Amino acid sequence: MDLVVKSLAEAGQSHLLQFYDELSPEERASLTLDLESMDFQEINGFFKSAMETSSSSKHEKMDARMEPVPREVLGSVTRDRDSLKDWEVEGLHCISQSKVAVLLLAGGQGTRLGVSYPKGMYDVGLPSHKTLFQIQAERILKLQQLADEKHKTKCCIPWYIMTSGRTMDSTKEFFSRHNYFGLSKDNVIFFQQGMLPAMDYNGKIILESKSKLSMAPDGNGGLYRALGNQGIMDDMERRGIGFIHVYCVDNILVKVADPAFVGFCVQKGADCGAKVVEKTNPTEAVGVVCKVDGCYQVVEYSEITLTTAEKRSADGRLMFNAGNIANHFFTLSFLKDIVQKYEPQLQHHVAQKKIPYVDTQGRLIKPDKPNGIKMEKFVFDIFQFAKTFVVYEVLREDEFSPLKNADSQDGKDTPTTARHALMSLHHRWVLNAGGHFIDENGTRVPAIPRDGAAGSVTDDGNMNLKDGTDLPIKCEISPLVSYGGEGLEDLVKGQEFRPTLMIDENGVHELVKNGV
Amino acid sequence: MDLVVKSLAEAGQSHLLQFYDELSPEERASLTLDLESMDFQEINGFFKSAMETSSSSKHEKMDARMEPVPREVLGSVTRDRDSLKDWEVEGLHCISQSKVAVLLLAGGQGTRLGVSYPKGMYDVGLPSHKTLFQIQAERILKLQQLADEKHKTKCCIPWYIMTSGRTMDSTKEFFSRHNYFGLSKDNVIFFQQGMLPAMDYNGKIILESKSKLSMAPDGNGGLYRALGNQGIMDDMERRGIGFIHVYCVDNILVKVADPAFVGFCVQKGADCGAKVVEKTNPTEAVGVVCKVDGCYQVVEYSEITLTTAEKRSADGRLMFNAGNIANHFFTLSFLKDIVQKYEPQLQHHVAQKKIPYVDTQGRLIKPDKPNGIKMEKFVFDIFQFAKTFVVYEVLREDEFSPLKNADSQDGKDTPTTARHALMSLHHRWVLNAGGHFIDENGTRVPAIPRDGAAGSVTDDGNMNLKDGTDLPIKCEISPLVSYGGEGLEDLVKGQEFRPTLMIDENGVHELVKNGV
Repeated sequence: MDLVVKSLAEAGQSHLLQFYDELSPEERASLTLDLESMDFQEINGFFKSAMETSSSSKHEKMDARMEPVPREVLGSVTRDRDSLKDWEVEGLHCISQSKVAVLLLAGGQGTRLGVSYPKGMYDVGLPSHKTLFQIQAERILKLQQLADEKHKTKCCIPWYIMTSGRTMDSTKEFFSRHNYFGLSKDNVIFFQQGMLPAMDYNGKIILESKSKLSMAPDGNGGLYRALGNQGIMDDMERRGIGFIHVYCVDNILVKVADPAFVGFCVQKGADCGAKVVEKTNPTEAVGVVCKVDGCYQVVEYSEITLTTAEKRSADGRLMFNAGNIANHFFTLSFLKDIVQKYEPQLQHHVAQKKIPYVDTQGRLIKPDKPNGIKMEKFVFDIFQFAKTFVVYEVLREDEFSPLKNADSQDGKDTPTTARHALMSLHHRWVLNAGGHFIDENGTRVPAIPRDGAAGSVTDDGNMNLKDGTDLPIKCEISPLVSYGGEGLEDLVKGQEFRPTLMIDENGVHELVKNGV
Repeated sequence: MDLVVKSLAEAGQSHLLQFYDELSPEERASLTLDLESMDFQEINGFFKSAMETSSSSKHEKMDARMEPVPREVLGSVTRDRDSLKDWEVEGLHCISQSKVAVLLLAGGQGTRLGVSYPKGMYDVGLPSHKTLFQIQAERILKLQQLADEKHKTKCCIPWYIMTSGRTMDSTKEFFSRHNYFGLSKDNVIFFQQGMLPAMDYNGKIILESKSKLSMAPDGNGGLYRALGNQGIMDDMERRGIGFIHVYCVDNILVKVADPAFVGFCVQKGADCGAKVVEKTNPTEAVGVVCKVDGCYQVVEYSEITLTTAEKRSADGRLMFNAGNIANHFFTLSFLKDIVQKYEPQLQHHVAQKKIPYVDTQGRLIKPDKPNGIKMEKFVFDIFQFAKTFVVYEVLREDEFSPLKNADSQDGKDTPTTARHALMSLHHRWVLNAGGHFIDENGTRVPAIPRDGAAGSVTDDGNMNLKDGTDLPIKCEISPLVSYGGEGLEDLVKGQEFRPTLMIDENGVHELVKNGV
């Protein structure tokens, strides 16, 4: 304890012990344990440089320095259709050699979503009631199977899952309870990102109670530090991994280890790649991949002026339209360089927050203005170190629908929008495989159903309109049956289905309306 | 009455009198009056040809016949930026000569919206609580003023408002009560579209009660018949109108008599033009302007196969991306040709409906399957007759946000989305004029605020996130101050505002939060 007292004093953080005398023995032990594990000089250093960077880079001049992604580093599913098949073949080959791993960023809790458990455990209300974790696990299983069938191998796509102190136990328990969704337990590797204390504007660490520091995960860029200090790089090396697909848990459409994306990056000889969707509205709240002073980076929406956001190329598209969706490709050697060499160079970003705290009288205060900061690194902060950086543009409606908020009016990125996005994609898969849908009267439903009118015949609602909440055709296809729309012809071609249509490992079913 | 009996018998519609003996004298009189006003032979003819067209054109072969809009007939605000100013000057010149009229399609009720009055009377909850009618009226006023100032004239943009039997009285009363929102009463001209009876699949007119036929407006394409039979063409001619901008009441962003659109069409020598927004998602429920067998038309989303909807050009855009938004330009001479020559050639479209009816026992039945049809013409059915047809592509976020549905989860085209679209546009106007917004702490709000976080500093919601329902920066600019973003520099440049910002004829105000 003396050591702690000394190091706190040296770091100007002695106020953390101001209520020590009032604490119970258990509280004292717990607080001491927390304090002993922390390097206050390092934390003060983080604070100092984060605040300096934050105040110096008011981004006034960012606009003049920004350049769009050049066409030659861009691969596009809409503009490079002829190459798609090649890329996919390449990627599937890499997968069949067990060279591809997936890495899931799952440190966040579902707070904005209104739940206290990890987001991956959320059920968005699909007919199958599968969680995000299960959907992703089954996509990995299917992809292994596709690679094995094509190359007569028995390959493995290891799944690295980064949790945080807040989500580790419940995540592991969830996977264990669900038998790893059919994956081999050995190939699902959990690790944990670090935590950092919240600090006030003077660099004092904030107490959230008399015996507890206010701690928060260190951002998804905490990945790189965690990879090093938890032996993950060694594990990857031992397994012979060459390429890593990193993605965020909240995207229900995510194509884990997407062969086309992997193949594109490999063919281009890239060490680092970013999957993006086209930003079409200047004020959409999405960061854009671009070059700044010759280096690739993500410029966040809050850093960009409207003038720059509204700039357009001669083809009418937004000039800065490479919308970042936290979906990246790294080679192992690039990641090793990052972890071993560059990680310490990454600055923490400052996020101003309203942080509940105990005041000097020991009262819990919930401020109504920001009163301090959290420090975070971002996963995309390492783009600047890439030698060959590429960008891969995909269609939003096929690949990106994040789950962020609880359902609400005009809600964006909600359980409802995620569910609809998945069912709409699967609906299109069925149509493209030659299947049809019919309504309750046996009439074929048009390929593009009216918004809010699955099964409704009227368009203007003058008579007997069904309620408008039951939007898309209800259709769900298990990832165990199809990873990306393939292999459905034999199951659906020339057939007519009444929603809800379910296609899973047990076959093709029509579910009774309003049933599960 | 004998005549009615005879004509009903000849038309096979005698069942309309089956309850006549049970009716009260008033009901008998009313029914007789209704029946006397109708031409049953004509209605039977409509039914016959509409059903023939509907069943013959199962659109199986539509896909092969569709061609996209050629680049040379397309004007685009994003791809033809250099010409924009010219077009605007041309259009404003036409307006200053009182050659431009606007024609509002306002025959629909707000049924889907959940109200029983005309949609134009709806208040979407803007800070000013202006209705759609008022917003449009004020845009006309401002545009007259802009043209007058530029050309030292006293011009007039007459406003023709097409109502239906259901909306005429309440619409006229509303305008009168609000003193025509400052417009001259003489320049607001109401007229009424026709009604047609609903019919069962055998062509029998449906009774909605023992004494009352089931009637519905004849579609927004009823415009052309109404223009002729209510003397509107003569009125336009008398006023010296040359160009007519036709639009639908429900678009809160509509640029009535848009000078750039009018000027583009005039410079291209077009007799007919369609304003469109780019369709970016293949399954968006919007009709697309294209060529079929060499003639321009709108192919509705329900007519298109997914394969065609997903076709892309080499530039990656959807091939059929000219999304129709019911916003058209016509020359007077073209409109005259339509009304005098071509209108009778337009086929009615068949919409299958669930139509409440009285059965032979006189009981009111509310069917749960479609049991009959409504017949409608569409305003865009006349594109095929254009000699020089042009398409003008604008930005959705600037010009199109229709009000169709009541608020709901995942709701599209609701009061909330309409309100947000308008405030977001006005927010951008202020930024582009050099103004800034600050939050409750005096910090400048980024140009692109996070979804759901006007005034919120946090991004991940771990701490104290404000509720996510209060989305955009609250900002409203009266059309009396600015038609399209012009003229705001003197009012806002270099200044900082706290939302809610209101700019109107009384000046620049900040409204107290949650006030007004």
